[in-house]
Amino acid sequence: MTVPEIDAVARLLARLPGLGPRSARRATLALLRRRGAVAEPLMRALQACLDRVQPCSRCGNLDSDEPCRICADPKRDPALLMVVEDVESLWAMERAGSYRGRYHVLGGTLSAIDGTGPQHLGVDRLVARAAAEGVTEIVLALGATVDGQTTAHYLAERLKPLGRPMTRLGFGVPVGGELTYLDEGTLGAALSSRTPFG
Amino acid sequence: MTVPEIDAVARLLARLPGLGPRSARRATLALLRRRGAVAEPLMRALQACLDRVQPCSRCGNLDSDEPCRICADPKRDPALLMVVEDVESLWAMERAGSYRGRYHVLGGTLSAIDGTGPQHLGVDRLVARAAAEGVTEIVLALGATVDGQTTAHYLAERLKPLGRPMTRLGFGVPVGGELTYLDEGTLGAALSSRTPFG
Repeated sequence: MTVPEIDAVARLLARLPGLGPRSARRATLALLRRRGAVAEPLMRALQACLDRVQPCSRCGNLDSDEPCRICADPKRDPALLMVVEDVESLWAMERAGSYRGRYHVLGGTLSAIDGTGPQHLGVDRLVARAAAEGVTEIVLALGATVDGQTTAHYLAERLKPLGRPMTRLGFGVPVGGELTYLDEGTLGAALSSRTPFG
Repeated sequence: MTVPEIDAVARLLARLPGLGPRSARRATLALLRRRGAVAEPLMRALQACLDRVQPCSRCGNLDSDEPCRICADPKRDPALLMVVEDVESLWAMERAGSYRGRYHVLGGTLSAIDGTGPQHLGVDRLVARAAAEGVTEIVLALGATVDGQTTAHYLAERLKPLGRPMTRLGFGVPVGGELTYLDEGTLGAALSSRTPFG
Protein backbone atom coordinates (compact mmCIF):
# COMPACT_ATOMS: atom_id res chain seq x y z
CA MET A 1 0.00 0.00 0.00
CA THR A 2 2.16 2.84 -1.25
CA VAL A 3 0.89 5.70 -3.35
CA PRO A 4 3.99 7.30 -4.88
CA GLU A 5 2.43 10.76 -5.17
CA ILE A 6 1.45 10.80 -1.47
CA ASP A 7 4.84 9.42 -0.42
CA ALA A 8 6.67 12.12 -2.40
CA VAL A 9 4.81 14.93 -0.63
CA ALA A 10 5.18 13.28 2.80
CA ARG A 11 8.92 12.71 2.31
CA LEU A 12 9.48 16.38 1.46
CA LEU A 13 7.28 17.65 4.31
CA ALA A 14 9.23 15.42 6.72
CA ARG A 15 12.35 17.45 5.88
CA LEU A 16 10.81 20.53 7.52
CA PRO A 17 11.58 21.17 11.19
CA GLY A 18 8.82 20.00 13.51
CA LEU A 19 7.46 17.29 11.21
CA GLY A 20 8.46 13.64 11.50
CA PRO A 21 7.56 10.91 8.98
CA ARG A 22 4.22 10.19 10.60
CA SER A 23 3.08 13.79 11.10
CA ALA A 24 4.20 14.51 7.52
CA ARG A 25 1.80 11.82 6.29
CA ARG A 26 -1.01 13.29 8.38
CA ALA A 27 -0.22 16.73 6.97
CA THR A 28 -0.28 15.32 3.42
CA LEU A 29 -3.70 13.84 4.07
CA ALA A 30 -4.90 17.19 5.44
CA LEU A 31 -3.64 18.86 2.24
CA LEU A 32 -5.54 16.35 0.09
CA ARG A 33 -8.70 16.85 2.13
CA ARG A 34 -8.50 20.64 2.16
CA ARG A 35 -7.43 21.16 -1.39
CA GLY A 36 -9.22 24.47 -2.05
CA ALA A 37 -8.88 25.90 1.45
CA VAL A 38 -5.25 25.02 2.15
CA ALA A 39 -3.29 23.09 -0.51
CA GLU A 40 -3.85 25.37 -3.52
CA PRO A 41 -3.49 28.68 -1.61
CA LEU A 42 -0.35 27.22 0.01
CA MET A 43 1.24 26.50 -3.37
CA ARG A 44 0.44 30.02 -4.60
CA ALA A 45 1.72 31.63 -1.37
CA LEU A 46 4.92 29.58 -1.41
CA GLN A 47 5.60 30.49 -5.03
CA ALA A 48 5.11 34.19 -4.20
CA CYS A 49 7.39 33.81 -1.19
CA LEU A 50 10.16 32.18 -3.25
CA ASP A 51 9.77 34.78 -6.01
CA ARG A 52 9.83 37.85 -3.79
CA VAL A 53 11.58 37.19 -0.48
CA GLN A 54 15.35 37.80 -0.49
CA PRO A 55 17.99 38.50 2.16
CA CYS A 56 18.32 42.24 2.86
CA SER A 57 21.60 43.48 1.35
CA ARG A 58 22.31 45.54 4.50
CA CYS A 59 21.42 43.31 7.44
CA GLY A 60 20.69 39.82 6.08
CA ASN A 61 17.06 39.78 7.28
CA LEU A 62 14.58 38.11 4.90
CA ASP A 63 12.03 40.43 3.30
CA SER A 64 10.20 41.14 0.06
CA ASP A 65 11.36 44.76 0.34
CA GLU A 66 14.97 45.83 -0.34
CA PRO A 67 16.33 47.10 2.01
CA CYS A 68 14.16 45.22 4.50
CA ARG A 69 11.35 46.92 6.42
CA ILE A 70 13.49 47.14 9.58
CA CYS A 71 16.45 48.79 7.80
CA ALA A 72 14.01 51.11 5.99
CA ASP A 73 12.02 52.05 9.10
CA PRO A 74 12.96 55.63 10.16
CA LYS A 75 11.63 54.91 13.68
CA ARG A 76 14.34 52.25 14.28
CA ASP A 77 17.41 53.67 15.99
CA PRO A 78 20.40 53.35 13.60
CA ALA A 79 22.84 53.86 16.50
CA LEU A 80 21.98 50.46 17.97
CA LEU A 81 23.23 47.38 16.12
CA MET A 82 22.26 43.92 17.32
CA VAL A 83 24.17 40.92 15.99
CA VAL A 84 22.05 37.75 15.77
CA GLU A 85 22.82 34.27 14.49
CA ASP A 86 19.90 33.88 12.12
CA VAL A 87 16.55 35.19 10.98
CA GLU A 88 14.79 33.01 13.55
CA SER A 89 16.63 34.83 16.35
CA LEU A 90 15.67 38.15 14.78
CA TRP A 91 12.01 37.09 14.68
CA ALA A 92 12.17 35.96 18.31
CA MET A 93 13.62 39.33 19.35
CA GLU A 94 10.94 41.16 17.35
CA ARG A 95 8.24 39.12 19.08
CA ALA A 96 9.65 40.26 22.43
CA GLY A 97 8.97 43.78 21.13
CA SER A 98 11.46 45.63 23.32
CA TYR A 99 14.34 46.26 20.90
CA ARG A 100 14.09 49.36 18.70
CA GLY A 101 17.47 49.32 16.92
CA ARG A 102 18.67 47.56 13.79
CA TYR A 103 20.08 44.09 13.20
CA HIS A 104 22.94 42.26 11.61
CA VAL A 105 22.19 38.63 10.73
CA LEU A 106 25.33 36.48 10.69
CA GLY A 107 23.69 33.45 9.11
CA GLY A 108 25.26 31.03 11.60
CA THR A 109 27.94 30.68 14.24
CA LEU A 110 31.59 29.77 14.09
CA SER A 111 31.77 26.01 14.27
CA ALA A 112 34.85 23.84 14.12
CA ILE A 113 32.68 20.74 13.61
CA ASP A 114 30.74 22.19 10.66
CA GLY A 115 33.84 23.95 9.32
CA THR A 116 32.18 27.39 9.56
CA GLY A 117 34.84 30.11 9.71
CA PRO A 118 34.66 33.93 9.89
CA GLN A 119 34.67 34.17 6.08
CA HIS A 120 31.38 32.20 5.91
CA LEU A 121 29.69 34.59 8.33
CA GLY A 122 30.66 37.79 6.52
CA VAL A 123 32.39 39.17 9.60
CA ASP A 124 34.27 41.76 7.49
CA ARG A 125 30.91 43.12 6.33
CA LEU A 126 29.76 43.40 9.97
CA VAL A 127 32.96 45.20 10.98
CA ALA A 128 32.62 47.65 8.07
CA ARG A 129 29.00 48.28 8.98
CA ALA A 130 29.71 48.79 12.68
CA ALA A 131 32.51 51.22 11.78
CA ALA A 132 30.66 53.29 9.20
CA GLU A 133 27.18 53.97 10.45
CA GLY A 134 27.65 56.05 13.60
CA VAL A 135 26.85 53.08 15.79
CA THR A 136 26.95 53.79 19.53
CA GLU A 137 26.26 50.28 20.84
CA ILE A 138 26.76 46.80 19.46
CA VAL A 139 24.59 44.17 21.16
CA LEU A 140 26.00 40.68 20.69
CA ALA A 141 22.76 38.65 20.94
CA LEU A 142 24.11 35.16 20.28
CA GLY A 143 22.78 31.97 21.82
CA ALA A 144 24.09 30.76 25.18
CA THR A 145 25.65 27.73 23.46
CA VAL A 146 29.33 26.86 23.08
CA ASP A 147 29.33 27.92 19.41
CA GLY A 148 27.25 31.04 20.13
CA GLN A 149 29.56 32.24 22.87
CA THR A 150 32.72 31.34 20.93
CA THR A 151 31.34 33.49 18.12
CA ALA A 152 30.52 36.33 20.54
CA HIS A 153 34.09 36.31 21.89
CA TYR A 154 35.56 36.24 18.40
CA LEU A 155 33.33 39.13 17.25
CA ALA A 156 34.22 41.14 20.37
CA GLU A 157 37.92 40.75 19.47
CA ARG A 158 37.32 41.83 15.90
CA LEU A 159 35.06 44.79 16.83
CA LYS A 160 37.18 46.06 19.75
CA PRO A 161 39.48 48.25 17.54
CA LEU A 162 36.40 50.31 16.57
CA GLY A 163 36.11 51.50 20.16
CA ARG A 164 32.29 51.13 20.18
CA PRO A 165 30.56 50.11 23.42
CA MET A 166 29.64 46.42 23.19
CA THR A 167 27.12 44.45 25.27
CA ARG A 168 25.79 40.94 25.31
CA LEU A 169 22.39 39.65 26.49
CA GLY A 170 22.04 38.95 30.21
CA PHE A 171 22.14 35.31 31.36
CA GLY A 172 19.91 34.07 34.15
CA VAL A 173 16.69 32.42 35.21
CA PRO A 174 14.16 32.49 32.35
CA VAL A 175 10.95 34.31 33.23
CA GLY A 176 8.47 31.73 34.52
CA GLY A 177 11.32 29.28 35.21
CA GLU A 178 11.40 27.19 38.36
CA LEU A 179 14.82 26.72 39.96
CA THR A 180 14.29 22.96 40.38
CA TYR A 181 14.31 22.43 36.63
CA LEU A 182 17.27 24.65 35.74
CA ASP A 183 20.73 23.34 34.93
CA GLU A 184 23.82 24.23 36.96
CA GLY A 185 25.19 26.53 34.24
CA THR A 186 22.08 28.70 34.22
CA LEU A 187 21.92 28.85 38.01
CA GLY A 188 25.63 29.77 38.22
CA ALA A 189 25.13 32.52 35.62
CA ALA A 190 22.03 33.81 37.44
CA LEU A 191 23.98 33.98 40.70
CA SER A 192 26.88 35.87 39.05
CA SER A 193 24.49 38.38 37.51
CA ARG A 194 22.41 38.92 40.67
CA THR A 195 21.18 42.49 41.17
CA PRO A 196 20.32 44.57 44.25
CA PHE A 197 16.72 44.09 45.33
CA GLY A 198 14.37 45.47 47.95
CA MET B 1 8.30 43.54 11.11
CA THR B 2 5.84 41.59 9.00
CA VAL B 3 6.62 40.23 5.60
CA PRO B 4 3.22 39.47 4.03
CA GLU B 5 4.59 36.70 1.75
CA ILE B 6 6.18 34.86 4.69
CA ASP B 7 3.09 35.36 6.87
CA ALA B 8 0.84 33.95 4.15
CA VAL B 9 2.84 30.71 3.90
CA ALA B 10 3.15 30.39 7.69
CA ARG B 11 -0.59 30.94 8.21
CA LEU B 12 -1.45 28.18 5.74
CA LEU B 13 1.14 25.75 7.11
CA ALA B 14 -0.24 26.37 10.61
CA ARG B 15 -3.55 24.89 9.42
CA LEU B 16 -1.90 21.50 8.99
CA PRO B 17 -2.04 19.04 11.90
CA GLY B 18 1.15 19.01 13.96
CA LEU B 19 2.21 22.58 13.17
CA GLY B 20 1.44 25.53 15.45
CA PRO B 21 2.01 29.19 14.55
CA ARG B 22 5.62 29.14 15.68
CA SER B 23 6.66 25.86 14.08
CA ALA B 24 4.89 26.99 10.89
CA ARG B 25 7.15 30.06 10.79
CA ARG B 26 10.21 27.87 11.32
CA ALA B 27 9.04 25.57 8.53
CA THR B 28 8.53 28.59 6.23
CA LEU B 29 12.07 29.72 6.94
CA ALA B 30 13.34 26.20 6.17
CA LEU B 31 11.46 26.31 2.86
CA LEU B 32 13.07 29.65 1.98
CA ARG B 33 16.50 28.33 2.89
CA ARG B 34 16.13 25.05 1.04
CA ARG B 35 14.43 26.33 -2.04
CA GLY B 36 15.93 23.92 -4.58
CA ALA B 37 16.14 20.90 -2.29
CA VAL B 38 12.73 21.12 -0.62
CA ALA B 39 10.43 24.03 -1.55
CA GLU B 40 10.35 23.61 -5.33
CA PRO B 41 10.17 19.79 -5.34
CA LEU B 42 7.43 20.06 -2.69
CA MET B 43 5.32 22.32 -4.90
CA ARG B 44 5.71 19.94 -7.85
CA ALA B 45 4.95 16.88 -5.72
CA LEU B 46 1.90 18.52 -4.15
CA GLN B 47 0.55 19.53 -7.55
CA ALA B 48 1.01 15.93 -8.82
CA CYS B 49 -0.70 14.64 -5.68
CA LEU B 50 -3.70 16.96 -6.11
CA ASP B 51 -3.93 16.13 -9.81
CA ARG B 52 -3.75 12.35 -9.49
CA VAL B 53 -4.88 11.17 -6.05
CA GLN B 54 -8.61 10.48 -5.68
CA PRO B 55 -10.80 8.45 -3.33
CA CYS B 56 -11.19 4.86 -4.56
CA SER B 57 -14.75 4.42 -5.88
CA ARG B 58 -15.00 1.02 -4.16
CA CYS B 59 -13.53 1.49 -0.69
CA GLY B 60 -12.84 5.21 -0.20
CA ASN B 61 -9.05 4.80 0.19
CA LEU B 62 -6.94 7.54 -1.43
CA ASP B 63 -4.83 6.45 -4.38
CA SER B 64 -3.64 7.56 -7.81
CA ASP B 65 -4.95 4.25 -9.21
CA GLU B 66 -8.66 3.53 -9.67
CA PRO B 67 -9.63 1.20 -8.09
CA CYS B 68 -6.98 1.64 -5.41
CA ARG B 69 -3.98 -0.68 -5.15
CA ILE B 70 -5.55 -2.56 -2.22
CA CYS B 71 -8.86 -3.21 -4.04
CA ALA B 72 -6.90 -4.18 -7.17
CA ASP B 73 -4.46 -6.48 -5.36
CA PRO B 74 -5.40 -10.13 -6.12
CA LYS B 75 -3.45 -11.25 -3.02
CA ARG B 76 -5.83 -9.36 -0.69
CA ASP B 77 -8.64 -11.58 0.58
CA PRO B 78 -11.97 -10.21 -0.73
CA ALA B 79 -13.89 -12.24 1.87
CA LEU B 80 -12.59 -10.02 4.70
CA LEU B 81 -13.99 -6.50 4.92
CA MET B 82 -12.64 -4.08 7.52
CA VAL B 83 -14.60 -0.90 8.23
CA VAL B 84 -12.38 2.04 9.28
CA GLU B 85 -13.20 5.64 10.09
CA ASP B 86 -10.71 7.32 7.78
CA VAL B 87 -7.67 6.89 5.54
CA GLU B 88 -5.36 7.56 8.51
CA SER B 89 -6.79 4.51 10.29
CA LEU B 90 -6.29 2.47 7.10
CA TRP B 91 -2.64 3.60 6.91
CA ALA B 92 -2.12 2.72 10.58
CA MET B 93 -3.54 -0.76 10.01
CA GLU B 94 -1.36 -1.23 6.90
CA ARG B 95 1.73 -0.22 8.91
CA ALA B 96 0.85 -2.94 11.40
CA GLY B 97 1.09 -5.28 8.41
CA SER B 98 -1.06 -8.10 9.77
CA TYR B 99 -4.34 -7.54 7.92
CA ARG B 100 -4.67 -9.12 4.46
CA GLY B 101 -8.29 -8.33 3.59
CA ARG B 102 -9.92 -5.27 2.05
CA TYR B 103 -11.22 -2.04 3.56
CA HIS B 104 -14.21 0.22 3.64
CA VAL B 105 -13.45 3.82 4.59
CA LEU B 106 -16.43 5.55 6.21
CA GLY B 107 -14.93 9.03 6.12
CA GLY B 108 -15.90 9.79 9.71
CA THR B 109 -18.07 8.65 12.59
CA LEU B 110 -21.65 9.34 13.57
CA SER B 111 -21.59 12.48 15.66
CA ALA B 112 -24.53 14.29 17.17
CA ILE B 113 -22.32 17.33 17.91
CA ASP B 114 -20.98 17.64 14.35
CA GLY B 115 -24.37 16.66 12.86
CA THR B 116 -22.87 13.65 11.04
CA GLY B 117 -25.62 11.12 10.27
CA PRO B 118 -25.61 7.74 8.45
CA GLN B 119 -26.27 9.46 5.10
CA HIS B 120 -22.97 11.40 5.39
CA LEU B 121 -21.03 8.18 5.92
CA GLY B 122 -22.47 6.31 2.95
CA VAL B 123 -23.70 3.49 5.16
CA ASP B 124 -26.06 2.25 2.41
CA ARG B 125 -23.03 1.80 0.17
CA LEU B 126 -21.29 -0.21 2.88
CA VAL B 127 -24.36 -2.43 3.39
CA ALA B 128 -24.62 -3.04 -0.36
CA ARG B 129 -20.94 -3.90 -0.55
CA ALA B 130 -21.03 -6.21 2.46
CA ALA B 131 -24.08 -7.97 0.94
CA ALA B 132 -22.79 -8.36 -2.60
CA GLU B 133 -19.20 -9.43 -2.48
CA GLY B 134 -19.21 -12.84 -0.81
CA VAL B 135 -17.91 -11.36 2.40
CA THR B 136 -17.38 -13.89 5.23
CA GLU B 137 -16.30 -11.49 7.98
CA ILE B 138 -16.86 -7.82 8.66
CA VAL B 139 -14.28 -6.32 11.05
CA LEU B 140 -15.56 -3.14 12.65
CA ALA B 141 -12.24 -1.38 13.32
CA LEU B 142 -13.49 1.89 14.77
CA GLY B 143 -11.74 3.93 17.44
CA ALA B 144 -12.37 3.22 21.12
CA THR B 145 -14.05 6.62 21.47
CA VAL B 146 -17.69 7.41 22.24
CA ASP B 147 -18.37 8.35 18.60
CA GLY B 148 -16.37 5.39 17.27
CA GLN B 149 -18.23 2.86 19.39
CA THR B 150 -21.63 4.50 18.75
CA THR B 151 -20.88 4.12 15.05
CA ALA B 152 -19.80 0.49 15.53
CA HIS B 153 -23.06 -0.34 17.32
CA TYR B 154 -25.11 1.44 14.65
CA LEU B 155 -23.28 -0.39 11.84
CA ALA B 156 -23.71 -3.73 13.61
CA GLU B 157 -27.49 -3.10 13.70
CA ARG B 158 -27.57 -2.20 10.02
CA LEU B 159 -25.36 -5.11 8.93
CA LYS B 160 -26.99 -7.77 11.12
CA PRO B 161 -29.77 -8.62 8.55
CA LEU B 162 -27.02 -9.78 6.13
CA GLY B 163 -26.17 -12.62 8.52
CA ARG B 164 -22.38 -12.16 8.05
CA PRO B 165 -20.09 -12.84 11.00
CA MET B 166 -19.01 -9.50 12.51
CA THR B 167 -16.08 -8.77 14.81
CA ARG B 168 -14.55 -5.71 16.38
CA LEU B 169 -10.95 -5.04 17.43
CA GLY B 170 -9.92 -6.32 20.86
CA PHE B 171 -9.62 -3.79 23.70
CA GLY B 172 -6.87 -4.04 26.29
CA VAL B 173 -3.41 -3.07 27.44
CA PRO B 174 -1.43 -1.55 24.54
CA VAL B 175 1.80 -3.43 23.79
CA GLY B 176 4.60 -1.74 25.74
CA GLY B 177 2.03 -0.12 28.08
CA GLU B 178 2.61 0.06 31.81
CA LEU B 179 -0.44 -0.49 34.00
CA THR B 180 0.36 2.57 36.15
CA TYR B 181 -0.28 4.91 33.26
CA LEU B 182 -3.45 3.34 31.91
CA ASP B 183 -6.91 4.76 32.50
CA GLU B 184 -9.67 2.86 34.30
CA GLY B 185 -11.61 2.22 31.09
CA THR B 186 -8.68 0.47 29.42
CA LEU B 187 -7.88 -1.59 32.52
CA GLY B 188 -11.54 -2.59 32.87
CA ALA B 189 -11.65 -3.63 29.21
CA ALA B 190 -8.37 -5.55 29.55
CA LEU B 191 -9.75 -7.44 32.56
CA SER B 192 -12.98 -8.32 30.72
CA SER B 193 -11.03 -9.59 27.73
CA ARG B 194 -8.48 -11.62 29.75
CA THR B 195 -7.38 -14.89 28.16
CA PRO B 196 -6.14 -18.24 29.57
CA PHE B 197 -2.40 -18.26 30.08
CA GLY B 198 0.27 -20.70 31.16
